[in-house]
Amino acid sequence: MKTIMQDIAKLAGVSPGTVSNALNDRKGVGKETKSKIIKIAEELGYFRNHKKNEEKVVKLLLFKKHGYVVSDTQFFSALIDACEKECRESGYELLISQVIHGEHDKENVLKIINQGKIDGILLLATEMNDADFSYFEGLDTPIVVLDSYFELKSQDYIVINNISGAYRATKYFIDNGHKRIGMLGSSINISNFEYRHKGFKKAIEEAGLEFREEDDILLEPTLDGSYKDMKEYLEKNKGKELPTALFAFNDIIALGAMRAMQEKGISIPKDISIIGFDDIPFSSLSNPNMTTVKVYTEEMGSIAVRRLIDKINDEGENVPLKIEIDTKLIERSSVAKLIK
Amino acid sequence: MKTIMQDIAKLAGVSPGTVSNALNDRKGVGKETKSKIIKIAEELGYFRNHKKNEEKVVKLLLFKKHGYVVSDTQFFSALIDACEKECRESGYELLISQVIHGEHDKENVLKIINQGKIDGILLLATEMNDADFSYFEGLDTPIVVLDSYFELKSQDYIVINNISGAYRATKYFIDNGHKRIGMLGSSINISNFEYRHKGFKKAIEEAGLEFREEDDILLEPTLDGSYKDMKEYLEKNKGKELPTALFAFNDIIALGAMRAMQEKGISIPKDISIIGFDDIPFSSLSNPNMTTVKVYTEEMGSIAVRRLIDKINDEGENVPLKIEIDTKLIERSSVAKLIK
Repeated sequence: MKTIMQDIAKLAGVSPGTVSNALNDRKGVGKETKSKIIKIAEELGYFRNHKKNEEKVVKLLLFKKHGYVVSDTQFFSALIDACEKECRESGYELLISQVIHGEHDKENVLKIINQGKIDGILLLATEMNDADFSYFEGLDTPIVVLDSYFELKSQDYIVINNISGAYRATKYFIDNGHKRIGMLGSSINISNFEYRHKGFKKAIEEAGLEFREEDDILLEPTLDGSYKDMKEYLEKNKGKELPTALFAFNDIIALGAMRAMQEKGISIPKDISIIGFDDIPFSSLSNPNMTTVKVYTEEMGSIAVRRLIDKINDEGENVPLKIEIDTKLIERSSVAKLIK
Repeated sequence: MKTIMQDIAKLAGVSPGTVSNALNDRKGVGKETKSKIIKIAEELGYFRNHKKNEEKVVKLLLFKKHGYVVSDTQFFSALIDACEKECRESGYELLISQVIHGEHDKENVLKIINQGKIDGILLLATEMNDADFSYFEGLDTPIVVLDSYFELKSQDYIVINNISGAYRATKYFIDNGHKRIGMLGSSINISNFEYRHKGFKKAIEEAGLEFREEDDILLEPTLDGSYKDMKEYLEKNKGKELPTALFAFNDIIALGAMRAMQEKGISIPKDISIIGFDDIPFSSLSNPNMTTVKVYTEEMGSIAVRRLIDKINDEGENVPLKIEIDTKLIERSSVAKLIK
């Protein structure tokens, strides 16, 4: 369902995040843009439904370590929109703050958390590791960790079921007759990628296939970066035989690499088959349009908010849960069936 | 689509989950909140469409393959009690049936499922594997799989977070100075044990410890069986040096093995330290009383029933979820601290 925030964003020609910032009086929005957004919001009746007094508040903390992954992508804007929508429907206001690794120390983080009255924290931990999480341990405010998982920390987690997603994608290659399957991995490691790697490995091992170290291709997880890195890889490995199939750790990596391959005369899927991960809208617009593993971003956001509200209201059990959201393989045109 | 539940939630300033709990007479909702919700629900005409009398039925299917694991143990009786209690509190009746592998074919299974009007199925799948699950695919009745997980099947699962539980137990040995750590595994394999094995291995590898194949001790997962098998093992390996610590795949195995070891003059924890899994009541009664990984059986049952009822009512998202319930290491007296 389209939200009013999305409508405002579209009409104002900005991202829903900017709309949220403008309507919540947060900094980082230019004066002109802000008044434009408020005007559109008024016209669309936003303020009739959003009284500000006594509103309960959820703070969404965007943890940025390197910013390679958590940036202005379709994936994260969809996830943030979903959190915003679920908050609004449950009578909560969503405030968004950034925590920059290396720039903010523990004191800063506590200050950000304690600005105003906060009822609960959603921590977008995509770029976070176990050690980084220490700032957020032992807080009095209920917290739900989104998009990352730390084995040793007893917390509530809402994550993608990466292992099964990657496993099913790899198995799809195998079922289509592929035997030499490589990875378009990431030069920057995050928890999601680690588990996608595990799922890939599991399918390869179960099928008794050999994985060659040289087929572990690491690219920068940005559109430009993956394009450049893949181009370089192809130049270095000119004349060498490549895998017949490549599983990419996400759609961005897949799309950048695909462009580099096509520029070098590699035909997809005739020469190389590709599967991505996330199912961002771009993946259905590429040529060929891309087979990928769909992540239910909207459900992820709403489940996270609901779990947090349950914790705020101290309802039901207090045992920490790790909720893994299923994925779905979306078959499009980037995988060739090999004749056996 | 916005549901009436969401409207009620918004007006009451609570989550749709709380509304559902309040309207279904489930626990965990404060008195005041509840009467507020009921009042709003009345105003919005909720009760015109939702009659409360007419008992609904949940069927709990106990799948038995060999019966070594799913039997009359404290673990399963606690789990079944919890399901029964949550059903009762939610206005559902719980019916229990057994499905015996090899005895019931698909037709039998469908007959069992379709006896009378069933609103939802809880499948206790502890002894089940991927292939066994095929009988239960494509049913019209909502289903939640309890205590087992199948990578390739898109279903709703409620499981123990076995990997982190086993990982933390093994790490506890390591933190106490143990370097040669073995496993009291099971000669019968089930999904839970497979993941406990993974968690164990992960901790050993991360610590850079060597695992000797001879320390992978497989015992029958019953009290008598593990006792007998362990006795035999000790007789065969007389005079050989044993590990200083053993991680058991469950408390039953640990208790049987402990008895065999003590009869052979091995002192626990002086000679060998032990950690079990489950925290069944017996584990605190043994001598020494046993350090173990607590499984929140009660929460497991209630979360499974609530997830099933949400599916029956078709509330919220329909994306399958794998919900892993956290565990907790219970420190008692069966682990010695080695002087480093």
